[in-house]
Amino acid sequence: MKYCSNCGNTVEKKIPEDDNRLRHCCDSCGSIHYLNPKVIAGTLPFIGDKVLLCKRAIKPRYGLWTLPAGFLENGETVAQGAFRETEEETDTQVKMGHLYAIFDIPQIYQVYMLHLSEVVNDDFKPTSESLEVKLFTEEEIPWDDLAFPFVPTVLKNYFKDKEKGEFPLRTQTIERPVKPIS
Amino acid sequence: MKYCSNCGNTVEKKIPEDDNRLRHCCDSCGSIHYLNPKVIAGTLPFIGDKVLLCKRAIKPRYGLWTLPAGFLENGETVAQGAFRETEEETDTQVKMGHLYAIFDIPQIYQVYMLHLSEVVNDDFKPTSESLEVKLFTEEEIPWDDLAFPFVPTVLKNYFKDKEKGEFPLRTQTIERPVKPIS
Repeated sequence: MKYCSNCGNTVEKKIPEDDNRLRHCCDSCGSIHYLNPKVIAGTLPFIGDKVLLCKRAIKPRYGLWTLPAGFLENGETVAQGAFRETEEETDTQVKMGHLYAIFDIPQIYQVYMLHLSEVVNDDFKPTSESLEVKLFTEEEIPWDDLAFPFVPTVLKNYFKDKEKGEFPLRTQTIERPVKPIS
Repeated sequence: MKYCSNCGNTVEKKIPEDDNRLRHCCDSCGSIHYLNPKVIAGTLPFIGDKVLLCKRAIKPRYGLWTLPAGFLENGETVAQGAFRETEEETDTQVKMGHLYAIFDIPQIYQVYMLHLSEVVNDDFKPTSESLEVKLFTEEEIPWDDLAFPFVPTVLKNYFKDKEKGEFPLRTQTIERPVKPIS
């Protein structure tokens, strides 16, 4: 952020009065621009002993498998965003279940919130965001080709919980490996 | 948003290619500026049969009672943000419990996430954000002077759950009354 989105003048990083963090401040119009974490809403779509995964048709992690999820939009509830993202990536309308997993990823300013969802139609198929959309049993999951660290974590929890028949909310912080300074 | 925060030229609201929503787009540098909901992290601090409330020293709802909560900051987990906000508003460091309530408030682009927390020190006191910080039994709570709709909702749930000794995650959507057009 270099310019004030309100008046177009340059912004400066400084700590505003009555604050204790650096913010992008505009001396010209007085605006303070706050940057906050974003919510990623998604689902874990299941049917019988299978889960529905999508092969990403977009960057990052193009060609790797993931659960349907994306940025929550203004005006949506978390469940509404999760349902929409699932449809955008699989073309099917799922039956929404309860909130099952929350992953804090503080290094990239994201909070993942995943609901369970039931695949109730067999109309799932590739979309502009997914190269392939496919059901997998636990044994069939392409464990070496999953897109993000949260995907194997939530899938492993799911299959363990499925054995017990109980799906309590799972919360976890994911630390991303810090890139070595070259 | 009137100006591009990247290059300072004017932005235009339009639907970008491969999108289906209006975004603030900069024709000059090609930036697309997304606006997404914010997470409000907070706690319900309790000790024995009492809960700790704060009388707001800031707008909006100046002078009304609330639970300690505020915007999650970049780099924090939800629990870290909740702990920080609780300390900023009560001056005490609580013992964090589990995530207890999520309120979607889609009309104002917010997701409230509240953890239970235990008051373990008696050093709570007013801060720059709170005029008063005080413990209340259920009967003593100033029900008519609570700051936001989520406050009575979560407090009523808490005292009900306390009778049963179980505190399952509560999720709820809060619809704000729409202001009449005058």
